[in-house]
Amino acid sequence: MSRSAGRKSDEIRKTSFHPYFLKHPEGSCLIECGDTRVLATITVEEKVPPFLKGQGTGWLAAEYDMLPGSTEKRHTRERTLGKVSGRSQEIQRLLGRSLRGMIDLKKLGEKTLLVDCDVLQADGGTRVSAINAGAVALTLAIKRLHFRGHLNADPLLGLVSAVSIGIVRGEKLLDLDFQEDSNADVDLNIVENEKGELLEVQGTGENRAFALRELFDLIQMGEKGLAEIIKLQKDAIEAGYETILRQS
Amino acid sequence: MSRSAGRKSDEIRKTSFHPYFLKHPEGSCLIECGDTRVLATITVEEKVPPFLKGQGTGWLAAEYDMLPGSTEKRHTRERTLGKVSGRSQEIQRLLGRSLRGMIDLKKLGEKTLLVDCDVLQADGGTRVSAINAGAVALTLAIKRLHFRGHLNADPLLGLVSAVSIGIVRGEKLLDLDFQEDSNADVDLNIVENEKGELLEVQGTGENRAFALRELFDLIQMGEKGLAEIIKLQKDAIEAGYETILRQS
Amino acid sequence: MSRSAGRKSDEIRKTSFHPYFLKHPEGSCLIECGDTRVLATITVEEKVPPFLKGQGTGWLAAEYDMLPGSTEKRHTRERTLGKVSGRSQEIQRLLGRSLRGMIDLKKLGEKTLLVDCDVLQADGGTRVSAINAGAVALTLAIKRLHFRGHLNADPLLGLVSAVSIGIVRGEKLLDLDFQEDSNADVDLNIVENEKGELLEVQGTGENRAFALRELFDLIQMGEKGLAEIIKLQKDAIEAGYETILRQS
Amino acid sequence: MSRSAGRKSDEIRKTSFHPYFLKHPEGSCLIECGDTRVLATITVEEKVPPFLKGQGTGWLAAEYDMLPGSTEKRHTRERTLGKVSGRSQEIQRLLGRSLRGMIDLKKLGEKTLLVDCDVLQADGGTRVSAINAGAVALTLAIKRLHFRGHLNADPLLGLVSAVSIGIVRGEKLLDLDFQEDSNADVDLNIVENEKGELLEVQGTGENRAFALRELFDLIQMGEKGLAEIIKLQKDAIEAGYETILRQS
Amino acid sequence: MSRSAGRKSDEIRKTSFHPYFLKHPEGSCLIECGDTRVLATITVEEKVPPFLKGQGTGWLAAEYDMLPGSTEKRHTRERTLGKVSGRSQEIQRLLGRSLRGMIDLKKLGEKTLLVDCDVLQADGGTRVSAINAGAVALTLAIKRLHFRGHLNADPLLGLVSAVSIGIVRGEKLLDLDFQEDSNADVDLNIVENEKGELLEVQGTGENRAFALRELFDLIQMGEKGLAEIIKLQKDAIEAGYETILRQS
Amino acid sequence: MSRSAGRKSDEIRKTSFHPYFLKHPEGSCLIECGDTRVLATITVEEKVPPFLKGQGTGWLAAEYDMLPGSTEKRHTRERTLGKVSGRSQEIQRLLGRSLRGMIDLKKLGEKTLLVDCDVLQADGGTRVSAINAGAVALTLAIKRLHFRGHLNADPLLGLVSAVSIGIVRGEKLLDLDFQEDSNADVDLNIVENEKGELLEVQGTGENRAFALRELFDLIQMGEKGLAEIIKLQKDAIEAGYETILRQS
Repeated sequence: MSRSAGRKSDEIRKTSFHPYFLKHPEGSCLIECGDTRVLATITVEEKVPPFLKGQGTGWLAAEYDMLPGSTEKRHTRERTLGKVSGRSQEIQRLLGRSLRGMIDLKKLGEKTLLVDCDVLQADGGTRVSAINAGAVALTLAIKRLHFRGHLNADPLLGLVSAVSIGIVRGEKLLDLDFQEDSNADVDLNIVENEKGELLEVQGTGENRAFALRELFDLIQMGEKGLAEIIKLQKDAIEAGYETILRQS
Repeated sequence: MSRSAGRKSDEIRKTSFHPYFLKHPEGSCLIECGDTRVLATITVEEKVPPFLKGQGTGWLAAEYDMLPGSTEKRHTRERTLGKVSGRSQEIQRLLGRSLRGMIDLKKLGEKTLLVDCDVLQADGGTRVSAINAGAVALTLAIKRLHFRGHLNADPLLGLVSAVSIGIVRGEKLLDLDFQEDSNADVDLNIVENEKGELLEVQGTGENRAFALRELFDLIQMGEKGLAEIIKLQKDAIEAGYETILRQS
Repeated sequence: MSRSAGRKSDEIRKTSFHPYFLKHPEGSCLIECGDTRVLATITVEEKVPPFLKGQGTGWLAAEYDMLPGSTEKRHTRERTLGKVSGRSQEIQRLLGRSLRGMIDLKKLGEKTLLVDCDVLQADGGTRVSAINAGAVALTLAIKRLHFRGHLNADPLLGLVSAVSIGIVRGEKLLDLDFQEDSNADVDLNIVENEKGELLEVQGTGENRAFALRELFDLIQMGEKGLAEIIKLQKDAIEAGYETILRQS
Repeated sequence: MSRSAGRKSDEIRKTSFHPYFLKHPEGSCLIECGDTRVLATITVEEKVPPFLKGQGTGWLAAEYDMLPGSTEKRHTRERTLGKVSGRSQEIQRLLGRSLRGMIDLKKLGEKTLLVDCDVLQADGGTRVSAINAGAVALTLAIKRLHFRGHLNADPLLGLVSAVSIGIVRGEKLLDLDFQEDSNADVDLNIVENEKGELLEVQGTGENRAFALRELFDLIQMGEKGLAEIIKLQKDAIEAGYETILRQS
Repeated sequence: MSRSAGRKSDEIRKTSFHPYFLKHPEGSCLIECGDTRVLATITVEEKVPPFLKGQGTGWLAAEYDMLPGSTEKRHTRERTLGKVSGRSQEIQRLLGRSLRGMIDLKKLGEKTLLVDCDVLQADGGTRVSAINAGAVALTLAIKRLHFRGHLNADPLLGLVSAVSIGIVRGEKLLDLDFQEDSNADVDLNIVENEKGELLEVQGTGENRAFALRELFDLIQMGEKGLAEIIKLQKDAIEAGYETILRQS
Repeated sequence: MSRSAGRKSDEIRKTSFHPYFLKHPEGSCLIECGDTRVLATITVEEKVPPFLKGQGTGWLAAEYDMLPGSTEKRHTRERTLGKVSGRSQEIQRLLGRSLRGMIDLKKLGEKTLLVDCDVLQADGGTRVSAINAGAVALTLAIKRLHFRGHLNADPLLGLVSAVSIGIVRGEKLLDLDFQEDSNADVDLNIVENEKGELLEVQGTGENRAFALRELFDLIQMGEKGLAEIIKLQKDAIEAGYETILRQS
């Protein structure tokens, strides 16, 4: 089976980051990964959820949603359903856990960082793209807060990056597009920090079970992709930081 | 009072249309009007609402929403509130009525055209921008359906365009940005068809009442802006049509 | 086309106001306008919405609903739908804006005036009837608060009145009943203050667009009706004030 | 303790029925019982709930609600709460069971009778007033359906009537107003058919338990009130029937 | 008609109580009454509802629900419906009123006792079983609070017990199972305190009306059952108290 | 650090299965794993979700909930929140995917298997316990359907089992209780089929990232626990099958 645009099995899609795509939020970043486009924005609130009140520590929460026109068949708005879908909830929880891994919440103080990830166009891998764009937007938001003197300490612990890997018709593939994802027998997402350590592993046998050895191989293929993504994230942060300096 | 970017009182903001901004929907268009950015997409469903079943006629319905990062203070998702806000509902009803004015629903057949307008960035005039982008996306969707043989007749009656006008600190202004809109004493939106006839007039005295003569003057100022917008819409439709032809 | 009960095209329906129709609320008024019957009641709360807290200013909010038996086909309760319909929301917003035009909110102090308009029987023009009855009930509520010493200043700026006008089968008609409204090509509601200045203009081309000149003529026909309504409102306030004095 | 308006302990309040208070529903009746005012309307639907489909039998369902201005402290709309309150649900179930006791559902055919009871003004006893007004409106709706040839058989089994009784500060009282009800130690509602047989007995010791003998005495006091109510109901039905004949 | 397991008409089902079935709540009790199994648990909150704030008095509230697998046809979760069903609400209100009859709320102080009754398996009489298990769990919770020094005074007024009685095919029966309940013409639930006084009487003529004499006979049959239930409740409290002592 | 009840680091808790704990559902099983108790029940519906209609294939869906008294701090009912929590949704999706791995949906025919997992008492590991009890209840439900002739083919592919593993204060532990889970730095759940192949891997670094080698070691420790659980599941299925035979 040949991949679209002649991609090799261990090659990620053409990916670009657009830092400060929006003017209002503290930080923002649009990612384009193949045809997938996700917009991440960061808002800061000077309060924490009830369970953290008075402890001097901060919080980070994430929300995920898709625009109606982002999918091939129109995506019904969740406000119409009157609830957040199970899939969105699962992704939000993954986003929150992953991005909290970037922040020392105690150094943040009693603030909440709200990460909003909205899918403009979906072609597979929206949750890992949301993490990757979110990590850039989050870094920029913290840098701007710091630059403007709204933080006493630097709460940044480092970047996180995410990638999907899968087994499609017997072949291990890196960074699946929608077509590949729909045909995957095994589906894996991993999130790592800058040091190449795992923060999240979520593997599912969609149509068949898999051996421990296969899991091992998939994670290693994923780590090759993560190395490329983290470089692009760092370039985007550099460019976004220029914007912060120009605005001051 | 001087306007931002040295605008004259009867001058519209720099406005551009990006037809087929997304690949999945039947039609789509992103409008940039100053810092306001609204994405309109059109989906076609092969069914009509219950009250129209079996009558051989079609329908058009519109939805409007804002991304959390689109506003200066984060905009809470309506799915979180568990309801569509009064403001969104009012705008959706205006969008639906205005865009239905473009279509002969009987010629459409038993189809529903869903118009989704999502605000990526808000700086005043989002509802009129939604109408303007929606009119372009709708025209393109109909043209593509027609081109691909999915329509028996051409249901297009012509374009519609919308603009806001207001009285701010005693001065009549065309195409208000957020700053101006927040300070407006009188606020007016008008929607017209290609022939320059009115489809909607919605005027409100926010801080003071207004005379019939003032209403008259504001509408005439608005019509000047509409003449410019309609030209931009037509260019965008031309460009979008190229895309349709290339895709075939 | 002849109107029911031999009405002339520029004649309003037989209209009567029943002040203090209910005993509990601070102010109340039932309006009968032809077969349309709307009950407006005013409640006072000693608090303001969060966005006004601590500013020393008051607020006025309106709710609108219909009884299940008010319409020809039973009207499903909105509590069953689990949401306020788009139509109700739009009307509530119009009611709120119009009636806030009667009150100097700064003189009111940190109070909220809740206006509830419930349609007992619907035969066209319920939103303008709600404004007209609401204006009477609101005036009486303020007068009673004032009489009983619960206000430091008189926040009343004057009355507002509303009327519908439309073009039905080519003819301009004042104060449309349900039958006429269902057949209207152009539909207009206007709200004015006591001085004959406009507070709201909401015009829609339901089946066809309309010229600026037609808008002008319709507004002038409406102003003839408003002159009659305002006289009836003033008589009702006079009668209601008697009730306040008797109760003391 | 003396009752308001010099009532004796076994005397019902001044009560009047206004049949066909509204023009749209199949049947309607406004009851005034002291200061309590409840409007009951009947709508007919040509379908039954899923659990009865295809069985040739009909159904009757009831809804109960209060207007915001009906109570001393404003009654929040249940649509705002997003749910039907426990109290409303309990009353609706009582209304449904009681009024189904008037109808042979098999003779009704596959129809649903919807009974809507809306409290315009509340001063105690709204649930029994709703039953009493509902029974009149229901009888009239059936009579009109029958008169117009929409029924094959007469499903009416007879009238039902309801009354409240209680023990207040040691004294047994008939037909409690709000003031009395708030101070009642024991609170009882009974529903009977025309033959003086019980359909519902709902007794609660609010502040103290009660003996079987006390229950017995309260029911007998209630039956005295029911004899008077049923006479008023029959007169109202007679008057409403005149209206039906005049309309034909 | 013979009853299942050869029961006599005035015989209750085999009933057992399992105090402290769960380890977390302040008090808990599982009741098995024939095949009906209901789990009651008590939680204590150090606050009261808004309407009682600052009055030094406590509150007791009850919730009732059924597990999906508890009924013959799967019981849809109420969270799926997005609302508490009318039946559950009615039962919760009965549970709350009945169990509040056991407590002197003033002696409780500003605490709320939450009683949760969850039906594991349903075979008729779940609401009376919930009261009976709730009364045991509530007594144990109070005793443990007292024993551990969390109460200044003993708020217990005594036990309450409940039983169902009905007329099935002409025969009066005590403690109906689901099969009998489904065929009952008259259905009665009574709640009494330890002194044999009534707290609640809820009788309904499901298929026919009933005479006052029948009501009298049914209550007396019920009182025979209550005498047996109260003995079992007292034994369970004794056993549960042992558990409290052992835990200390 | 010593584990409660003197458990070794690679030892599972005392675990027992109670097949057919309830009488109504097609299959049911209560699991006790230490102090964790989860009840799983299976209901069969003769229909499939819309997206599968007419394809001759079946479906399996799972729901997860906790009783209010199951947790140390009372667990608020999700019906009160008006939504299924993110945590519940995530667990339901895991349950559904894992248990669908046991069934050849094409052989099932157009049926839906509903798996309800309700936590009676929570002490860590409720999601893996739900899978383990669900797998037993599901096998029994299929066996009973088959035995009674309601299936044309045997859709069972084999058992699945699940276990949690974690790193707590530097030590790798099998089958974490609540106390251990709250202190875990790394938290992993795995699901395997009878052949020892992976169906799900969900690993999270709660307080620190982890190396690939650690992941490998944890999975191997988990597989030791799964071998014991699967034996207990098989015994329970044997016992449950006896019940099926006796009922026939």
